Amino acid sequence: MSNHENNGNGGISAASSGLPETPCIIINGAKVAGNIAGMAEAAARSGVKLRPHAKTHKLPEVAAKQIAAGADGITVAKLSEAEVMADSGIDNIFIAYPIVSPAKLERAVRLASRGVRLILAVDSLEGAMLLSQAAAAGGMELEARLEIDTGLHRTGVLPQDAAELALKIDAMDGIRLSGIFTYRGAMLDGKSTLDIRAAGHEEGRMMAEAARALRDAGLDIADVSVGSTPTAAYAAEIDGVTEIRPGTYIYQDRMQVGFGVCAFDDCAGAVWVTVVSRPSAELIVVDGGSKTFATDVQPNNPPLHLRGFGHIIGDEHAVLERMNEEHGMIRIAADSAYRVGDRIAIIPNHICSTVNLHNFVYWEESDGLLRKTPIAARGMLE
Amino acid sequence: MSNHENNGNGGISAASSGLPETPCIIINGAKVAGNIAGMAEAAARSGVKLRPHAKTHKLPEVAAKQIAAGADGITVAKLSEAEVMADSGIDNIFIAYPIVSPAKLERAVRLASRGVRLILAVDSLEGAMLLSQAAAAGGMELEARLEIDTGLHRTGVLPQDAAELALKIDAMDGIRLSGIFTYRGAMLDGKSTLDIRAAGHEEGRMMAEAARALRDAGLDIADVSVGSTPTAAYAAEIDGVTEIRPGTYIYQDRMQVGFGVCAFDDCAGAVWVTVVSRPSAELIVVDGGSKTFATDVQPNNPPLHLRGFGHIIGDEHAVLERMNEEHGMIRIAADSAYRVGDRIAIIPNHICSTVNLHNFVYWEESDGLLRKTPIAARGMLE
Repeated sequence: MSNHENNGNGGISAASSGLPETPCIIINGAKVAGNIAGMAEAAARSGVKLRPHAKTHKLPEVAAKQIAAGADGITVAKLSEAEVMADSGIDNIFIAYPIVSPAKLERAVRLASRGVRLILAVDSLEGAMLLSQAAAAGGMELEARLEIDTGLHRTGVLPQDAAELALKIDAMDGIRLSGIFTYRGAMLDGKSTLDIRAAGHEEGRMMAEAARALRDAGLDIADVSVGSTPTAAYAAEIDGVTEIRPGTYIYQDRMQVGFGVCAFDDCAGAVWVTVVSRPSAELIVVDGGSKTFATDVQPNNPPLHLRGFGHIIGDEHAVLERMNEEHGMIRIAADSAYRVGDRIAIIPNHICSTVNLHNFVYWEESDGLLRKTPIAARGMLE
Repeated sequence: MSNHENNGNGGISAASSGLPETPCIIINGAKVAGNIAGMAEAAARSGVKLRPHAKTHKLPEVAAKQIAAGADGITVAKLSEAEVMADSGIDNIFIAYPIVSPAKLERAVRLASRGVRLILAVDSLEGAMLLSQAAAAGGMELEARLEIDTGLHRTGVLPQDAAELALKIDAMDGIRLSGIFTYRGAMLDGKSTLDIRAAGHEEGRMMAEAARALRDAGLDIADVSVGSTPTAAYAAEIDGVTEIRPGTYIYQDRMQVGFGVCAFDDCAGAVWVTVVSRPSAELIVVDGGSKTFATDVQPNNPPLHLRGFGHIIGDEHAVLERMNEEHGMIRIAADSAYRVGDRIAIIPNHICSTVNLHNFVYWEESDGLLRKTPIAARGMLE
């Protein structure tokens, strides 16, 4: 077997394809269905509820499929995303992000008044007071979960401070504190890890323990919500965890392959680009750069040691090693067959932020047709 | 003066403001006008044409202002951007990117048939043949410029190979090779540099020399087009350079401040965020992360040594040191006054890719009103 065969062109000749213009994202519907079923089974096996984070796909129709497959509801990061989802009939939504703007909280009250089970997030006394005021103004009660900082040190209250804060919040009018939640990613003993089984178990244990402490303090904590795509299935195995909130699993990406939670073949989203230049034997330039591929998971980002900004399908020796806004520079074997006009499919390092760069995806179903699908909740920055 | 005053809250209390919901970008129209005038004057001083790159603003109305202030035309990176600009009446457009898709070239021919001076880019024989075929099919001649690789090693032909390729392209039917162009950024002797004056002069000299060599070979090279925001004014000083194509200058950003080409006060675009949590004395979390701020210019990116992902206006000690998709973690002085609900303005490291994450900007004019302005050519990925 020659190097030429090993390092050959992983793309499809433009001439032979009916592919859309590039750059674009193509989503494989069959793989999405497999990913939906797999996570639903993992949740059912552990007897926990599944509330997928919609941040990855931002598509109400995909959220509906997740719910049809057994998910209890969905998670979003923004009020505006919740509004888009509710407008499409999704009626059980957790906004896993502290909302502290009075105007947004007024909109949240309106949303909760529409028959949606809307759960808000709170992690501070100031935030809780704003929630309480909004609830009072709306003449209603708002359901909320307290965010626990289990080590990521972003939003959330430390476990040892949780009971004191929760009691104060619980005493406020208009807030029903129904649960706790955390986001932690793959972390063990305070450090990033590739041992996601141990990370998930630790995450689950910390949250089960936090829930026990709050109940001991007299609080009625029903929901104990955890989990990222890598850790969700493992955290779910811990007694006391009641819900998982993975997001990325819907499409999967190279970062998740790096965590070992899926194979490249499970990745449902690929970015297609075209070779626009081969300025030297070992370099091709494609029409996707940092406005097409997310750069928030960097090459060589520990602990994954991802080489380059994506995985070039069919050519594991090729490395997307540099990007400008619209140029992607791929280092290739000198004897590989890439030509100007060839199209290449690339699994991005981080699919969530990559999808967020695009106005639409092409959705491929078993009929082989590509449907141009606007990303309804994309760019909902407010 | 106490630390409290030094490191105090650079934001505006939510209660006292009529600001839009966050995260959002606010563009200061007066600063944009100053930036437009400044670059127009630099071009006029050196007697070169100005063809701003619209990749930064992606707004036809801003392109029109640049042209009204003396720009010859505009530059874009994508055919779809050119189409949006032409639809708004911009009639002199250079697509500084090799287009190699037959379907796109067919659209380019249609665009050129509409009375637009459309200039295409070419850097390979294969690409030129595709241009020639499209021109023949459209029964017209296409104007093109040859891209020269002056050291960035992305698209472009090396100077020593330019004449041979240019002669072959010139011999093809349907292509009028009217000029050469390059993009180089701040580079000196093959390395990144902060000596942008020397970098700009080197860039100009290389291109003037390349143009001479092509003319010596018998080619009619009229346009010698160079320049990024940092180098444009310096490259323009070199005899033989005829055009500059800066883009970022329209808004400016922290990277350009790092290059010394402007002050923070010249930065017309700021990202506004809200403090959603202060989990510890030295940490605030704001509602903008990697889906709000571009990450393609990294903290500590040489040679700028930018600390953090943006410059927090009014608090030079605060550092936006970590981001997740929707969380920005800002390290602050323990005695500073930030509170949940405060709004903060941040100058991003790279405004071009940051604007590209947003669906709209708020445009502030001297009447003090903020106008929500959809970014017409955003996300034109095809």
